[in-house]
Amino acid sequence: MFRERLYLFDTTLRDGAQTAGIEFSLEDKIAIARMLEEIGVDYIEGGYPGANPVDTEFFETERTKRATFTAFGMTKRAGRSAANDPGVQALVNSAAPATCFVAKAWDYQVDLALGSSTEEHLEGLADTVGVAAAAGKEVLVDLEHFFDGFKANPDYALSCVRTALDAGARWVVLCDTNGGTMPSEVRQIVGAVLEIAPGDHLGIHSHDDTGQAVANALAAVEAGVRQVQGTLNGLGERCGNANLITLIPTLALKPFYAERFETGVTPSHLQRLTSISRAFDDRLNRAPARQAPYVGASAFATKAGIHASALLKDFSTYEHVAPEGVGNERAIMVSQQAGKSNLLTALARHGITLEKDDPRLEKLLKTVKEREARGYSYDGADASFAVLARRSLGTLPKFFEVENYRASVERRHNAMGEEVTVTEAVVKVRVDGELLMSVAEGNGPVNALDQALRKDLGKYSSQIEDLRLSDFKVRILDGGTSAVTRVLVESRDASGERWVTIGVSPNIIDASFEALYESITYKLLKAEAAQTSTTA
Amino acid sequence: MFRERLYLFDTTLRDGAQTAGIEFSLEDKIAIARMLEEIGVDYIEGGYPGANPVDTEFFETERTKRATFTAFGMTKRAGRSAANDPGVQALVNSAAPATCFVAKAWDYQVDLALGSSTEEHLEGLADTVGVAAAAGKEVLVDLEHFFDGFKANPDYALSCVRTALDAGARWVVLCDTNGGTMPSEVRQIVGAVLEIAPGDHLGIHSHDDTGQAVANALAAVEAGVRQVQGTLNGLGERCGNANLITLIPTLALKPFYAERFETGVTPSHLQRLTSISRAFDDRLNRAPARQAPYVGASAFATKAGIHASALLKDFSTYEHVAPEGVGNERAIMVSQQAGKSNLLTALARHGITLEKDDPRLEKLLKTVKEREARGYSYDGADASFAVLARRSLGTLPKFFEVENYRASVERRHNAMGEEVTVTEAVVKVRVDGELLMSVAEGNGPVNALDQALRKDLGKYSSQIEDLRLSDFKVRILDGGTSAVTRVLVESRDASGERWVTIGVSPNIIDASFEALYESITYKLLKAEAAQTSTTA
Repeated sequence: MFRERLYLFDTTLRDGAQTAGIEFSLEDKIAIARMLEEIGVDYIEGGYPGANPVDTEFFETERTKRATFTAFGMTKRAGRSAANDPGVQALVNSAAPATCFVAKAWDYQVDLALGSSTEEHLEGLADTVGVAAAAGKEVLVDLEHFFDGFKANPDYALSCVRTALDAGARWVVLCDTNGGTMPSEVRQIVGAVLEIAPGDHLGIHSHDDTGQAVANALAAVEAGVRQVQGTLNGLGERCGNANLITLIPTLALKPFYAERFETGVTPSHLQRLTSISRAFDDRLNRAPARQAPYVGASAFATKAGIHASALLKDFSTYEHVAPEGVGNERAIMVSQQAGKSNLLTALARHGITLEKDDPRLEKLLKTVKEREARGYSYDGADASFAVLARRSLGTLPKFFEVENYRASVERRHNAMGEEVTVTEAVVKVRVDGELLMSVAEGNGPVNALDQALRKDLGKYSSQIEDLRLSDFKVRILDGGTSAVTRVLVESRDASGERWVTIGVSPNIIDASFEALYESITYKLLKAEAAQTSTTA
Repeated sequence: MFRERLYLFDTTLRDGAQTAGIEFSLEDKIAIARMLEEIGVDYIEGGYPGANPVDTEFFETERTKRATFTAFGMTKRAGRSAANDPGVQALVNSAAPATCFVAKAWDYQVDLALGSSTEEHLEGLADTVGVAAAAGKEVLVDLEHFFDGFKANPDYALSCVRTALDAGARWVVLCDTNGGTMPSEVRQIVGAVLEIAPGDHLGIHSHDDTGQAVANALAAVEAGVRQVQGTLNGLGERCGNANLITLIPTLALKPFYAERFETGVTPSHLQRLTSISRAFDDRLNRAPARQAPYVGASAFATKAGIHASALLKDFSTYEHVAPEGVGNERAIMVSQQAGKSNLLTALARHGITLEKDDPRLEKLLKTVKEREARGYSYDGADASFAVLARRSLGTLPKFFEVENYRASVERRHNAMGEEVTVTEAVVKVRVDGELLMSVAEGNGPVNALDQALRKDLGKYSSQIEDLRLSDFKVRILDGGTSAVTRVLVESRDASGERWVTIGVSPNIIDASFEALYESITYKLLKAEAAQTSTTA
C-alpha cells in the first residue's frame, strides 16, 4: 500500500540554542549533528551563520552526511536588494545546501517589529527566496506567528504562503511561535492553507507552551503537512519545541501513522533513540527525565500495584510499544532477559562475545545493576563499561596500581600582594612492582592529578602520549554538594576516537580520579588490542 | 452565554502514587490534598482504603473541604456478593462520599487477569455499583483499557458503560491505561460511546506515553466528556498522567475552551498554580522542571535572540497567556544579545530601577558582556546577576572579605589497610575588621570549603542558618580539564526560594568558591531587604 513521505526536520542547534541556560560550543554542535544522523532525521538546521562566531565557523564546511544541512537566517533588510544584503549572502555563501528564511505572517508583527508595510515585507520575502533559489539552494521559509496571524488576518497570512512558493521555496513552515494554539485550531487552519498550497510543501513548527507541541505536530500531519520540525528531548525556547525523540517512534511504530506515512527512520535508528536521548542530556550536563515517553528510565517501569495479576501474565497489555524497539527496557522487577540481551549487544560492541547462558553474563549483569543503583550510568560512559566488563570477566590486564595520591589548592596573596592560587598533586603508582612517584602543578586539583598520574607510567608512558582530555562534567545526583558526585570524562587520542569514562563518589576528587584512571586503562586496552592485531 | 460544567478529578494520591520512586506518607497525603483544594479541583481521589495502612488511615476521616473526597478500589471478587466483599465494604465504610471502582473493558484482560467470563465481570460490576449507590455513595467506574478494549470488541466495551450507568454510577471514566491511544482515536471512540451514554456521565483518564496525555484529555472534552482526570505535575505510572497544572489554565484561559465550559477554578486558584506546582516538587524533593508549561521557570523566559526587536516592543505577542495570571513571571534573559532594555527588565526583577540613559547602565552592560566573553552566563545565574549589578552600581554592602583559603584531599591506606580519603579546608574571612578563621572536613574540597566558609561569619552567621545547597554543576567550557571551568550552584532557603550563582575560573576550586561566596552574598542581600521592609 502506498505511503506518503514525511520529512523530519531538526532545529536543536538553532531553536534549541534559545533554551534558557544552553550554550553550544563548536564541539557540541559537531557532536550533536552526529547524534541526529544516528536517529534518521532528514534535515539538520545548524544555526544562524553570521549571527555569532560559533555558528559562522560551524557553517564553513558541510557538517552532515545523509541529512540535509540547513542554514537559518532573516529575509533581506528593507532598503537594499537581497543580492546586496550581507545577512542573506552569509546564508547563500555558507556550506549548507538548504537555507531557511524567517518571515512574519502576522501583519501586526510586521508593523510592530519592522515598522514596514506588509507589501514591503512580501517583496523582501520574494526577493530573498528568489536569490537563494537562483543560487541553487533548497529554500525553506519559516512563517513566524502563522496561526495567530491567520486568526487576525487570513488573507495576509495566506499571501505569505503564496509569495514564498511562487518565489521558489520548496517548503513553507507554519510556526506556532508563542505556542498557544490548540490542536483543533492547527487542524482547521492547516486545512485552509492546503486549499491554496496543495501537495507536499507545508511544514509544522510547534512549541510546548500548553503541553501539546507533539499533538500539534501530529494534528498538522493528519491535516496534510509533510514536514515535521522538532528538537532532541524537546529542547527549545520557553517550554521547548516538539520532542523528536517522542514524535519519531510515534510516527514509525503507531499503525495509525505508520500505515499512511513513511519516513527516513529505520528500525536500527529507532533502537538508538534511548541512548541518543540520554547521551544528549549528558552533553548538556543534566539528568535525563525519568518519565520521558519511550526513552525515560520509567517509561516502561511498572509498580505492579493493581495491575499485578494481569502484568505478570502478559506485560504487553501494559506497554503501548515494545521497549526493545526504541532501545529501552522494561523495568518491572528487573527483567533478566531484557537486561541480558542489552548486555550482549554492548559487549559485542567491544569485541567480547559470550553465550547467552554463560554464568559470567549473569554476574556482570548483577554488577552493572548494583553499580547503577549507586549512581553509575553506563549509557553515557561506554569506555568505563568496557573496563568494567573485562574486570568482571577476569580478562582485564593489571597494567598499574595506584598506591595513593593527594592534591592541595591554596588561595593566598603573593609577595606583590596579588591573589594567587597554587595547586599541587602527588601520585604514587606501582608498575611491575616498581614504585613510581610523580608530583605536578595544575590549574585545579583534577588537572594536577591528571598531570601527575600520566607523568610516569614506566613502560606504558609512550602508549598514552597522545591521550587528551576533551571534556569533563560533574553532576551531583541527590542535590547539594554533600550528595554523591558523578564525574564524566571524555578523552580522545591521535586516532580521533573519543571515549567517555565515569567516576562516582561522595568526593568529587575521588570520582574524578576514578574516571581519569579508567580513561588511561581504556587507552592501554586499545594499545594492547592494536599490538595483538598487528602481531597476529 | 451558557457554558457547560466541566469537572476536574485529581488522582495524584492514587495513580500518582504508582510513580516509580514515589511513596506518600500520611502527612504527605494530608498536605497534598490541601494543595489540591488551593487550585480548585472538584474531586480528590485519596487512594485505596484497605490496600495499605496509610490509605486505610487516610480514609478514616473526611480529608477535603470543598472537593469531593473519593475512595478507589476493585469491584467484588467472584464467588461472593458485593455486600459480603471485604474490599467493596472497605470503600463503602470509608469516610469518602464518593467511591471509584475499576472494571476491565477489554475482554482479553477479563480472561487473562481474572480468568472469568465477561458476563460474570459485568454482573460483578452491576452488583458492586448497586451496593455502593444504595449506601448513598456517589459512584464512579474506571473502565480500564477502554480504548484498546473498544478496538478489540466494541460491543463488550460499550456494555461495560451501559451496565455501570444502569446500576446507578454517576460517572463512567474511559481510561487509556497503557497510554498508547492517539487524540484522533480518542475523539472518534468517545463519540461512539456518547451515542449510548448521552449527557454528562463520561470522564477521561489519559497517560503520557506518547507525550499526549493533555491532548487526549482535551480531545475527549471536545468530543463530549465532562470529567477530566489528571495529577499534579503529571505524576503517575510510567510516563505519568495528564498534568492538571497544564490542563487547568488551558481550560480556564483559552477562549477555545473557556467560552464553552466552566469549571470550579477561579482566577485566584489560577494565581496559585506556580507556587503549588513548585511546593509539590519540594515535597517530593525534586527540582521543578524549568520548561513546564505555564509554571516552569523558563515558561516565560526569552533569550532576545531573533525576536529581540519585536519582543522589547510588545512582550505579549511572545506570551500565549499573561504570566501573572498563573502566578509566574516574565524573564528576559541577560545573555550575549543583552541590550539596555533587557538589562532594565532584569534589574527591575531585583527591585533596581534605573533611567534608560543612566551612565551606570552603560557600565553594567559593558561588565556583563566582558564577563560573558570570559565564560560567565547570567541566563541561568540570576542571583549572581543581582550581586554583579549591585557591585557595578556601587550599592553592594561589604558584608565580609575572604583573606585566603586552602583545601587538601588525600587518598591513602589507613592503619587497617583500608583506602580512605581525608578532605580538609581552612578559610580566613574578615568581618568588620575582625579576622575569623575556620577549619572543616568535608567529603570533597568544595563541600569542606562550604562548611568552613559558613562556620563563622560573625554577626551574619544567624542570617545564613537556613541556606542550603540544592544543586552543583560543573562544565568545562573549552574542553579538557585545563580549560575554563564554569560552576553553577543552586541554593535554597526556608522560604522555598531557589537561586543560582555562577563561578568561572581555570581552577575548579576557585570557580566553586566564587559561586558559594555569591550565594551567601545573595542570601545576605535578601535578609537585608527583609529587615528594611519590616523596619520601614
